[in-house]
Amino acid sequence: MKKKAVILVSGGMDSCVTLAEALAAGFEPCLLHVNYGQRTEKRELKAFTEIADHYQIKHRLVTDIQHLVKIGGSSLTDSHIEVTKADLQNQEIPSSYVPFRNANILSIAVSWAEVIHAHAIYIGAVEEDSSGYPDCRKEFFVQYEKMVELGTKPDSKIHIKTPIITMKKFEIVKRGLELNAPLNLTWSCYQSEEKACGICDSCALRLRGFRQAEVEDPIPYLVRPVY
Amino acid sequence: MKKKAVILVSGGMDSCVTLAEALAAGFEPCLLHVNYGQRTEKRELKAFTEIADHYQIKHRLVTDIQHLVKIGGSSLTDSHIEVTKADLQNQEIPSSYVPFRNANILSIAVSWAEVIHAHAIYIGAVEEDSSGYPDCRKEFFVQYEKMVELGTKPDSKIHIKTPIITMKKFEIVKRGLELNAPLNLTWSCYQSEEKACGICDSCALRLRGFRQAEVEDPIPYLVRPVY
Repeated sequence: MKKKAVILVSGGMDSCVTLAEALAAGFEPCLLHVNYGQRTEKRELKAFTEIADHYQIKHRLVTDIQHLVKIGGSSLTDSHIEVTKADLQNQEIPSSYVPFRNANILSIAVSWAEVIHAHAIYIGAVEEDSSGYPDCRKEFFVQYEKMVELGTKPDSKIHIKTPIITMKKFEIVKRGLELNAPLNLTWSCYQSEEKACGICDSCALRLRGFRQAEVEDPIPYLVRPVY
Repeated sequence: MKKKAVILVSGGMDSCVTLAEALAAGFEPCLLHVNYGQRTEKRELKAFTEIADHYQIKHRLVTDIQHLVKIGGSSLTDSHIEVTKADLQNQEIPSSYVPFRNANILSIAVSWAEVIHAHAIYIGAVEEDSSGYPDCRKEFFVQYEKMVELGTKPDSKIHIKTPIITMKKFEIVKRGLELNAPLNLTWSCYQSEEKACGICDSCALRLRGFRQAEVEDPIPYLVRPVY
């Protein structure tokens, strides 16, 4: 019997390629999608569902958390804070940073993993292209795994897998194509839901990734600046 | 100006005494209460509100999470699993263990603490009387704090405080009385909402604590066995 893995699938390109990696590694996939009040929540859920359907994966857990909106502090969850235009040279933490989001989402994944006896949690965090979010760095996940080891039952062994963490965006595009991941179904824009805006941080990183991979991004954009 | 602390207040005795400790340490208190679908959610929220009113604390965040119920695996959140009668000699993890609950709740606290620039998070976990829950042990919280350090902005310094973690229940009762904590407003029972059942793990630990402290527990019970 295959070992189970909980895979965090937002509906974006990174988590789609991460899912493809988990499948390639031979895990039985259990998909977790968390709505945390982000602007493009509905569009992301649509992408999640289409990706899960594409792979015919039945084990799915979709859940809503409201506290990140109540807490605020990020342009992704607070409509009073502007989504800043991309500035890929800027070294500061951008306004889209949602405080401690990955830890919140991972804790849900661990609770689920413990109950269904999963051996791994896959998360599509990317260090270099992560816009400087502190909870996207490799050492954060290493520390998180140690904390999980101490905070779960003695017979639970849950590894945190970050297969694309050291990749650059163009490498993720290439890897996705190699693994036949359905990149056409993914959604990355922080701002729009019909066509991607082309100007937020996330669109900029994605468009630059496709340009550097020398492939055309299959999703529709309002504008397609060259990054 | 006083430094802020986020204090997790379930409405139980342990978190009430923990709040009293945070006040005694001079922090400006910001109270977090999380409904996670436990059986006695409403009664606990009532206790939370009464405790917060007692101390006239305005900063409050009350939030609901649904995923621990969806995930199940605990008698506290899944009505199909029986709340077992107390067996204080039993060394096994009891059915009331909610997988990774403390990590889920702490992650909410950290997100809030980061946004409001709090310096500490207080949690009323108790190691010895914790019924063997892995996420109630001191080393879990030490590891959690290290993870928080790596997962938050460089200028965020958030300490995890567990002032009663090494205390036995009777010491918590005594400390609560010393600090004039409103123990009469607290609720600990896992099962009932009008009068405490007197027979679940949590009631048993509480009743034994009061007996050993040689004080009468001021809350009403359906039955009061001598533990």
